[in-house]
Amino acid sequence: MTTYTAPIEDIKYALEHIADLESIATLPGLEEATPDLVYAVLEEAAKLAEEELASINHTGDLEGAHLIDGQVQCAKGWKHAYQAIVDGGWMAMPFPEDIGGQNLPWTLTLAVGEMWQASNMSFAIGPVLTHGAAELLAESGTDQQKALYLEKLVQGIWAGTMNLTEAAAGSDLGALKTKAVPEGDHYLITGQKIFITYGDQDLTENIIHFVLARTPDAPAGIKGISLFLVPKFLVNDDGSLGEMNDVRPVSLEHKLGLHASPTCVMSFGDHGHCIGYKVGDLNRGLAAMFTMMNNARLSVGVQGLGIAERAYQQALNYARERVQGRNLASEDRTPVSIVHHPDVKRMLLSMRARVEAMRGLIYFSAAMLDRSKRLASESERRFYQSFVDLLTPLSKAWCTDLGVEVASTGLQIHGGMGYIEETGAAQHFRDSRIAPIYEGTNGIQALDLASRKLQRDGGQSVFDLIAHMKDHIGTNSAFSAPLDTAFATLEDCTRHLVALFPQNPNAVSAAAWPYLQLFGTVFGGWVLAHGAQSAANKGHSAAYLQARQAIARFYFSHDMTHVTAYAATIREGSLAVEEFEIERL
Amino acid sequence: MTTYTAPIEDIKYALEHIADLESIATLPGLEEATPDLVYAVLEEAAKLAEEELASINHTGDLEGAHLIDGQVQCAKGWKHAYQAIVDGGWMAMPFPEDIGGQNLPWTLTLAVGEMWQASNMSFAIGPVLTHGAAELLAESGTDQQKALYLEKLVQGIWAGTMNLTEAAAGSDLGALKTKAVPEGDHYLITGQKIFITYGDQDLTENIIHFVLARTPDAPAGIKGISLFLVPKFLVNDDGSLGEMNDVRPVSLEHKLGLHASPTCVMSFGDHGHCIGYKVGDLNRGLAAMFTMMNNARLSVGVQGLGIAERAYQQALNYARERVQGRNLASEDRTPVSIVHHPDVKRMLLSMRARVEAMRGLIYFSAAMLDRSKRLASESERRFYQSFVDLLTPLSKAWCTDLGVEVASTGLQIHGGMGYIEETGAAQHFRDSRIAPIYEGTNGIQALDLASRKLQRDGGQSVFDLIAHMKDHIGTNSAFSAPLDTAFATLEDCTRHLVALFPQNPNAVSAAAWPYLQLFGTVFGGWVLAHGAQSAANKGHSAAYLQARQAIARFYFSHDMTHVTAYAATIREGSLAVEEFEIERL
Repeated sequence: MTTYTAPIEDIKYALEHIADLESIATLPGLEEATPDLVYAVLEEAAKLAEEELASINHTGDLEGAHLIDGQVQCAKGWKHAYQAIVDGGWMAMPFPEDIGGQNLPWTLTLAVGEMWQASNMSFAIGPVLTHGAAELLAESGTDQQKALYLEKLVQGIWAGTMNLTEAAAGSDLGALKTKAVPEGDHYLITGQKIFITYGDQDLTENIIHFVLARTPDAPAGIKGISLFLVPKFLVNDDGSLGEMNDVRPVSLEHKLGLHASPTCVMSFGDHGHCIGYKVGDLNRGLAAMFTMMNNARLSVGVQGLGIAERAYQQALNYARERVQGRNLASEDRTPVSIVHHPDVKRMLLSMRARVEAMRGLIYFSAAMLDRSKRLASESERRFYQSFVDLLTPLSKAWCTDLGVEVASTGLQIHGGMGYIEETGAAQHFRDSRIAPIYEGTNGIQALDLASRKLQRDGGQSVFDLIAHMKDHIGTNSAFSAPLDTAFATLEDCTRHLVALFPQNPNAVSAAAWPYLQLFGTVFGGWVLAHGAQSAANKGHSAAYLQARQAIARFYFSHDMTHVTAYAATIREGSLAVEEFEIERL
Repeated sequence: MTTYTAPIEDIKYALEHIADLESIATLPGLEEATPDLVYAVLEEAAKLAEEELASINHTGDLEGAHLIDGQVQCAKGWKHAYQAIVDGGWMAMPFPEDIGGQNLPWTLTLAVGEMWQASNMSFAIGPVLTHGAAELLAESGTDQQKALYLEKLVQGIWAGTMNLTEAAAGSDLGALKTKAVPEGDHYLITGQKIFITYGDQDLTENIIHFVLARTPDAPAGIKGISLFLVPKFLVNDDGSLGEMNDVRPVSLEHKLGLHASPTCVMSFGDHGHCIGYKVGDLNRGLAAMFTMMNNARLSVGVQGLGIAERAYQQALNYARERVQGRNLASEDRTPVSIVHHPDVKRMLLSMRARVEAMRGLIYFSAAMLDRSKRLASESERRFYQSFVDLLTPLSKAWCTDLGVEVASTGLQIHGGMGYIEETGAAQHFRDSRIAPIYEGTNGIQALDLASRKLQRDGGQSVFDLIAHMKDHIGTNSAFSAPLDTAFATLEDCTRHLVALFPQNPNAVSAAAWPYLQLFGTVFGGWVLAHGAQSAANKGHSAAYLQARQAIARFYFSHDMTHVTAYAATIREGSLAVEEFEIERL
């Protein structure tokens, strides 16, 4: 059992120095999001995370969710916590006021999201999906649909779910088979979806499922997929709830972790009258759904960050308390706490440096998202959107892979106690392991980055992003030279993959994962170096600055050293993947 | 639920080309261990692993072990499997005939051990400890102790356990408090030990606990620790069982994995009459226990290898069966199995290359162990013992870290199904995670390697080992040049740490983990390159040779690329660890 303390100072630091919060507050419509307001919001969120969410994280893991008489019941404390989130207006944070929102930046929303995820990942994945559903409906819904459902979703009074996966259609959604047959003003949905996160629960009085399905004459593949809104309870024209729709959770998965998040098999139309309403254009469902997915992908990246921060705190507390052994370099034979052992300290610094790198990446991405949504000029919006397009798969995959690694390091610091479930470190490790898988596996993210996102503009947005990063770091930084080399390597590898794609897309696919690692590692280097430099320019204390410099030096001497390794793999590694005959595996 | 197929061809390949089985069979006393005999033994072991052990791996995970009325009951099928191991004479494999052994090489014993660990890690850790106990008693026991206990341990009729850890004494055994007070021809033991693997079970009629404790006037720290033999049931002079001793399991830990391996809190002397017999000299218990630990450390390395092989097989089977998506580079839109996707193939090749590297390291280490035990000349024995001293912490730590990584990659290949416990991939991931922790954490192994093992001879045994490796790879190998560079890097970093130690042992500690990674990665490079080269010289088919070359090229372009990164961290990274103030973590 462990506590969580929201790292307010670190969050503020990243908001100020990496996300450039001041400039976010100058964006049209966000003028009220001054640093003072933002910091006040953070303090309130911290209380909720520390007191409400963290306290039910371990008990939720032990209890899990239940499926009783066709209805999911969440773990003890879930209902109370969810109500606190809704009552506090937290769900509505990033949405415009005219649809019931708080009109706050995504940058702040994701900073608060870090606290939710760190304190209770099983709980916090639910609101992520409702956020996505609200975004989706705001963008693609009809006026009537918005009138009936949107404000409820925005405020979290109702929840939203994402129903994509079927047994034979996971990464390849083109293979999905769920049917939607027109009948009057609606469609009748039949089919089964799997891995539906919070597919059912007892937290909200209604659940709005967004379901991908095919109409009878739809073309094969992804071009025949449409999107449907399927309420758990039908909604009358006055907004009141009508009868229950023909959709139900069939079973819950028994998972490695995230036990308190109900993962449902959902059955639509068992009795032939599951009513769904088309959202957006026929056969354009996947594009609409991607709004929801991109939102969720960034938030899954936040999960990687959050669980890593949580694991770091837990390991640090343990390392400070656990007395074992003595200082090898000293005559003093008094036992010391293990935080003093250089190898343990190395592990903690590795966790911490990576947490800071991830936080920088996520908050920066969110800041670009705010710019892409709020800037007045369309060309500027498009410019920053191109950053978001790169940073979404990067954040999702890089931060979730690191989330697992950091949670694993945290477990290791506990020694034998780490393997005992009671300690809590094992739960973080188990929970963290879903994030590289869901909302598009990290392999899919890497392909998206190295193939689609590079190829569409010949890597221009990567070069633009690098130029932006170079603009935001002083030339007198101790890290300028190695960072310049790393940027050059990233540019070079980008050009290499852009040139390679037309002749050999499979070779690019084989290099996609190392490319994503390279990209993330270099970005992390910028975060650490820029952070240290930016802090130096803003009059912090000497001890504070020394720590910033030291953590950056740690990252540059432990993580950035691998940049050339990834580059070598990108350049030389695809051939070995290609030439190996599959039959010989 | 998954099956396991012993990779006989791969095992033979590593025995032949990396461990040089032919030369092992020329060692004094091992003349009967001809390749023919060895291969026949492997075939028999494979049957047992595939049919008996693999079939109860998943059920054992679900059921776990039970503590009922002060007695541990193992999971269903455990008793039957254990009896099959004993009846087949498998426990006795590596021991001399005069103590009831089969007089077979450790090289073969660990190859068979790979099959046990791969098929059922929870089961197979038990025999590892009994092996260690037999070795320990053979080396340190009195004639009378050997007469009463040794053959029973050698043959596995009784089991042995290792009782080191206490709540406040883990990595620092000097802090242990269990007491041993002399009384007549024995001692009375009182104290509590934690994390005792198979501390109790219902598989054998007796259990021989080896317990570290202090006599009343013992010096403080590790120089006051003695070793005691504490039977569960006292043994009469005629070898029959007498009354139950005052030792019992108090509770079982609820662990992340390895559920079917009972991890006990053991209480000694609750009623004041726990009888123990001193083994070896007073206050020299730790040295004696290290015999057992070194044996167990190599076998824990085998667990890393075994679980990685198992995870690889499971992921490969899934990737061959799971149809999803299509070939990006082809006009053909027919869905393909995911093994055809370059990123999935890359993951499988990564798993496979690492499994081969690990297998080479383990089998090579075992071959050096056989030489160190069997060669006629003492100076030769000592020479190879110096290799074993290096390779034991390396095998333990490098293979178990990789075991977790490979199991994680295997889980990832399953996508969403990997996170569902029913699939089995998650169990491998959970099970794998203990191996970097027990029998000395991997941090402790790294310190042992980079501090003790390097400093005692100024790195000479590392240089000797590298010379040995260079002697065993042809100059016409495609990998000679990069391998030579890697060897030079390893030598250089070794010299660096040797020179650094006297002035700054803490800086060496901070670099110990990257040094171990460097060492393992370079050794793996030799394994892959030497394997490909050696196979080329022995008339295999062209397709076979192509695969050997391709997997080596994969390793060189994906793993060996990180050699320079680790070297940079070793040279430059310690300062960043040192300078960061602990209070600022």
